Amino acid sequence: MLGNSFGVAFCVSTFGESHGAAVGCVADGCPPGMGLCAEDLRGDLERRRPGRTRHVTQRREGDEAEILSGVFEGRTTGAPIAILIRNTDARSRDYADLRDKFRPGHADFSWWRKYGIRDYRGGGRSSARETAARVAAGAIARKWLGENLGVVIRGCLVRMGGIDLPFESWELAERSAFFAPCAGAEEALSARVEELRRQGDSCGAVVRVSAAGVPAGLGSPVFDRLDADIAKGMMSINAVKGVEVGSGFSAAEMLGSAHGDEMAGGEFLSNHAGGILGGVSSGQDVEVKIAVKPTSSIRKEMRTMTTGGEDAVVSTLGRHDPCVGIRAVPVAEAMLALVLMDHALRQR
Amino acid sequence: MLGNSFGVAFCVSTFGESHGAAVGCVADGCPPGMGLCAEDLRGDLERRRPGRTRHVTQRREGDEAEILSGVFEGRTTGAPIAILIRNTDARSRDYADLRDKFRPGHADFSWWRKYGIRDYRGGGRSSARETAARVAAGAIARKWLGENLGVVIRGCLVRMGGIDLPFESWELAERSAFFAPCAGAEEALSARVEELRRQGDSCGAVVRVSAAGVPAGLGSPVFDRLDADIAKGMMSINAVKGVEVGSGFSAAEMLGSAHGDEMAGGEFLSNHAGGILGGVSSGQDVEVKIAVKPTSSIRKEMRTMTTGGEDAVVSTLGRHDPCVGIRAVPVAEAMLALVLMDHALRQR
Amino acid sequence: MLGNSFGVAFCVSTFGESHGAAVGCVADGCPPGMGLCAEDLRGDLERRRPGRTRHVTQRREGDEAEILSGVFEGRTTGAPIAILIRNTDARSRDYADLRDKFRPGHADFSWWRKYGIRDYRGGGRSSARETAARVAAGAIARKWLGENLGVVIRGCLVRMGGIDLPFESWELAERSAFFAPCAGAEEALSARVEELRRQGDSCGAVVRVSAAGVPAGLGSPVFDRLDADIAKGMMSINAVKGVEVGSGFSAAEMLGSAHGDEMAGGEFLSNHAGGILGGVSSGQDVEVKIAVKPTSSIRKEMRTMTTGGEDAVVSTLGRHDPCVGIRAVPVAEAMLALVLMDHALRQR
Amino acid sequence: MLGNSFGVAFCVSTFGESHGAAVGCVADGCPPGMGLCAEDLRGDLERRRPGRTRHVTQRREGDEAEILSGVFEGRTTGAPIAILIRNTDARSRDYADLRDKFRPGHADFSWWRKYGIRDYRGGGRSSARETAARVAAGAIARKWLGENLGVVIRGCLVRMGGIDLPFESWELAERSAFFAPCAGAEEALSARVEELRRQGDSCGAVVRVSAAGVPAGLGSPVFDRLDADIAKGMMSINAVKGVEVGSGFSAAEMLGSAHGDEMAGGEFLSNHAGGILGGVSSGQDVEVKIAVKPTSSIRKEMRTMTTGGEDAVVSTLGRHDPCVGIRAVPVAEAMLALVLMDHALRQR
Repeated sequence: MLGNSFGVAFCVSTFGESHGAAVGCVADGCPPGMGLCAEDLRGDLERRRPGRTRHVTQRREGDEAEILSGVFEGRTTGAPIAILIRNTDARSRDYADLRDKFRPGHADFSWWRKYGIRDYRGGGRSSARETAARVAAGAIARKWLGENLGVVIRGCLVRMGGIDLPFESWELAERSAFFAPCAGAEEALSARVEELRRQGDSCGAVVRVSAAGVPAGLGSPVFDRLDADIAKGMMSINAVKGVEVGSGFSAAEMLGSAHGDEMAGGEFLSNHAGGILGGVSSGQDVEVKIAVKPTSSIRKEMRTMTTGGEDAVVSTLGRHDPCVGIRAVPVAEAMLALVLMDHALRQR
Repeated sequence: MLGNSFGVAFCVSTFGESHGAAVGCVADGCPPGMGLCAEDLRGDLERRRPGRTRHVTQRREGDEAEILSGVFEGRTTGAPIAILIRNTDARSRDYADLRDKFRPGHADFSWWRKYGIRDYRGGGRSSARETAARVAAGAIARKWLGENLGVVIRGCLVRMGGIDLPFESWELAERSAFFAPCAGAEEALSARVEELRRQGDSCGAVVRVSAAGVPAGLGSPVFDRLDADIAKGMMSINAVKGVEVGSGFSAAEMLGSAHGDEMAGGEFLSNHAGGILGGVSSGQDVEVKIAVKPTSSIRKEMRTMTTGGEDAVVSTLGRHDPCVGIRAVPVAEAMLALVLMDHALRQR
Repeated sequence: MLGNSFGVAFCVSTFGESHGAAVGCVADGCPPGMGLCAEDLRGDLERRRPGRTRHVTQRREGDEAEILSGVFEGRTTGAPIAILIRNTDARSRDYADLRDKFRPGHADFSWWRKYGIRDYRGGGRSSARETAARVAAGAIARKWLGENLGVVIRGCLVRMGGIDLPFESWELAERSAFFAPCAGAEEALSARVEELRRQGDSCGAVVRVSAAGVPAGLGSPVFDRLDADIAKGMMSINAVKGVEVGSGFSAAEMLGSAHGDEMAGGEFLSNHAGGILGGVSSGQDVEVKIAVKPTSSIRKEMRTMTTGGEDAVVSTLGRHDPCVGIRAVPVAEAMLALVLMDHALRQR
Repeated sequence: MLGNSFGVAFCVSTFGESHGAAVGCVADGCPPGMGLCAEDLRGDLERRRPGRTRHVTQRREGDEAEILSGVFEGRTTGAPIAILIRNTDARSRDYADLRDKFRPGHADFSWWRKYGIRDYRGGGRSSARETAARVAAGAIARKWLGENLGVVIRGCLVRMGGIDLPFESWELAERSAFFAPCAGAEEALSARVEELRRQGDSCGAVVRVSAAGVPAGLGSPVFDRLDADIAKGMMSINAVKGVEVGSGFSAAEMLGSAHGDEMAGGEFLSNHAGGILGGVSSGQDVEVKIAVKPTSSIRKEMRTMTTGGEDAVVSTLGRHDPCVGIRAVPVAEAMLALVLMDHALRQR
């Protein structure tokens, strides 16, 4: 069992369920002396927050994080930092119909097979609500990486529901309700989401996260390669089905002479590697893409099974994201921050 | 540092360099009582072995594995199983020219930045030679999974150097020098490899691995999800740049109503999930694809830098795989076996 | 860094400081399906609670534990169980005089050297207050061990401040304010504590903990031997300076023919081993003793140094235990429970 | 299971059985750049070697260690260092009588209950032979600690078979066949061992290990305290039944005003703490004592049980140490070195 902790030198353990009292985490390994207060967590939590825009789930969580430990007189002490986020808008009644039915594509079937117990309320611990704790821990990592190494982590959508979102700038992504890095796409994206909401359906997305300023030398071969830990962190996010570093699957189509990043004047001339060579950062930007499947909890009727093994039809009425890929952007950024801080501390 | 161990309940630690005395591993956690001898490791090692066919590197390693511990009277005892594979055909002189130059796309640059020391002989520990130890450990896992759970793990090439290899059968893949799962492709593949060899170039590939008979309930959310650990294991293989589970990146293009695997009569009607829901196995086949970049050590001249920071041109003369993706097939199978055995033991 | 987690299959991570917002823990790995509520934690917390009798520190903590996660409809789910205990009676003003002075025998000197930061309020995280979280987690382990294996864990004082406390029964220990396992000692012990309080001094103690019903086969040689993990757990309790298993240091005085526990009729005839042979439980009672040094925070004046390196005299005015060994009894029981549950789960 | 690895930042995994092909270890985490060759391991291995003097087991092992990996051109690379020590003088026929009988005080009973398999030849993996691998790894740690921090680790016997060995100097201990730190005790010790050999019996001992030059700040509270990890490491050595740090059990008899180490002129005036305060090194010498029980494999007849549950009498004829405490001295030094190097690397 276990599996609720991530990282070696900066280790984050999350706890909590979608409809329980709270979600939260213990972040252990943050060096002493860094300024930290609840306000530092607010920005990233807000970007992930349900109910923030009309394009995501309408569950209204304040997502106020309380720092319970590890900070004294406004600075980290080196002791574990426990963070508590109370659940305030859980409507368990929405899930009564799901008490005995499995949702196609949802964790409820396999988790029931694993644990023999079923927390049918909004997915329990398998819910994306757990990622709020990751984002809070990620905010600590992001702050530490920025202050100590000058690392900047950013994310955006690359595609959503069949709509391509060509990269123009990180600033556009940050301003967009969809984390779209291009001007003029909001309307099409809004329309797509509204259409899906009407149909009771959902769509997938491709997310990109990038870290600039990563020093060369991070990563612990041969198994804890930087890209291996990134792949694990990304694939551990709900609904992620694929991970690419640098050229990703297109690398399989290339020749070695085209793929190898040549150097001249002490600089790399391209970045097919995505900033990672042999599992160790090269000093170039770390570039990652993930595929997010469409939300499995949809209103549309689907054929399924009951816990008793009977055929059934299921329709999920709770408040869900038409495209969970949107809110996956800050979560993926947080996971990248966690991996980078962990390996930065492992390397010292 | 560290990072040379993989797995929690079945933990494999590898050691050894390409041109040192030996490579090997310690496999800890195999339950007592399983029949095991060196012969059990031979099949998988042979499938990965350099020099096996004319399409892979012509380094001639016997790859004889000696079991040093953990077996008494032909059965595992529960103690760690140490495996030793001596290096016998390392030609370090081939690498003299590389003493001070970095190969584009190769680990030598980033590892030098990390460790401050350079084992220029064939990549040292970053060499794919290290994967022989994984394959040996994977053979133990595969045997245990087969005998105890009936799990069958198989792999094949999906694409290589622009040639599509449509799936016809596992038997064809097993008989093919290219692990091609289709009849009639050998000639085109041979020609492609010969052409690359002539050009001093290399190509990428897509590899598929699949596990049938995996029981439902394996995986340790929220971080050690089965797919997360598979992603890590796969991305930790040399030259891998992308990992997909089930529908992978195509999931991003689908609607939720199409992607969710419906059930009828107690059976799933599709397997977009790739056998894993919410990070836990569902009982369906576990399906994984990986993107392998082209070998970075090529004869073709590339622009690079010396350790002193000067511009230079590099050409690698050692014996290398024109497509490292071919020999990645048994390695990927081994990694999948390691993950599944680890999680099967964690679940008990 | 790190070091705030204990256990492999049942892993407890504690957080929190003596004078911060709260102490607490995340207990991960409890199997699903066990009945659990806050009330189950109350008994052990009460036995450890400051202010419970006039013989211990007079800090008045309610020690109310809130279970934040991992329980659904009164049963554990297999997810991490987070427990929160708010601090309510921290009087930081008592420590103003200690802001710049080190207490002889106290963690404040070495922790300042380690972290470069000083939480002078009551020891911060080095305070025995942290053990409340261990006791809460230990109560879960104790319940699981009792319900699943029939294990019973008990503790008592063996010696305190020069007073011998010969074992008569566990019932007497449970009823005694000093966990004294003999009748008629309370008066002498009370007088000793009062005398120390008057003198502004403190005394040491020897604590015994015992586990009956431990199945044979627990322990993970060669390093995670059951006795090795017990030794670690016990030595990690504040103020512990020695650990013995079974015959302990008296084993060094014995002959092999006298020390080896003979068998007849399928039964052991003695228990010098303390229930552990070769690091693995034998089925006999697990017997452990620990030496607890006298509390280092005393009113009596001691020669010391300031953070600036000047000679100084220090006297600690906060509310402290005259003999921290008394409250160490339930803490040692909790640590034994944590080790046994961990190894019971590792063995399955 | 598992449990064959020790340490976090410097992690040693041992493998091998007393009468198998070899024992050995993989030492992972040694920083790159340290000079290392097989000769560096020879001194400590020789001090532990069976057959070295007539006072220890007469098994004649050469204990030649081969470094298989992790060293290039005479320097460590940062990659795992695998060490192989072949077994050459295992006489399994000595153990034929033990195939079905348990030795009182020996691991064979509990390990059989754990694993269900019995390697009756000389204890298999429970044999003290496994400690050769620890000593080899410890030699690496000792070298690194000496070269990088100036740490010096030494050990001696404090008592053996009822004979007190008052400390005079480390030089005497190093020259003594018994690691006795006093002049003139050899004769009495020799006579004691010969007497035990004649009687077919064995005796216990108390061992002291000490580390000078340990920098302040090592140790990872609250669970991985330096003393906690030392206690674990020591208790994981075969036959150890007790561990003391600093004043140990005598601390229980002292008053706080006497136990606390006062300071004047920036110096500690005593070292009751044994160099560790609150689980973190203080800069004083780290002082540890361990109790080693008498060897359980003795010629004298003892009452026992067979694997079938029948009463029996057992007498062990193999070549054994009359006092395993003697050879425990270099093993305890090695374990202390492993803990200190691990925590030194964790602290950086």
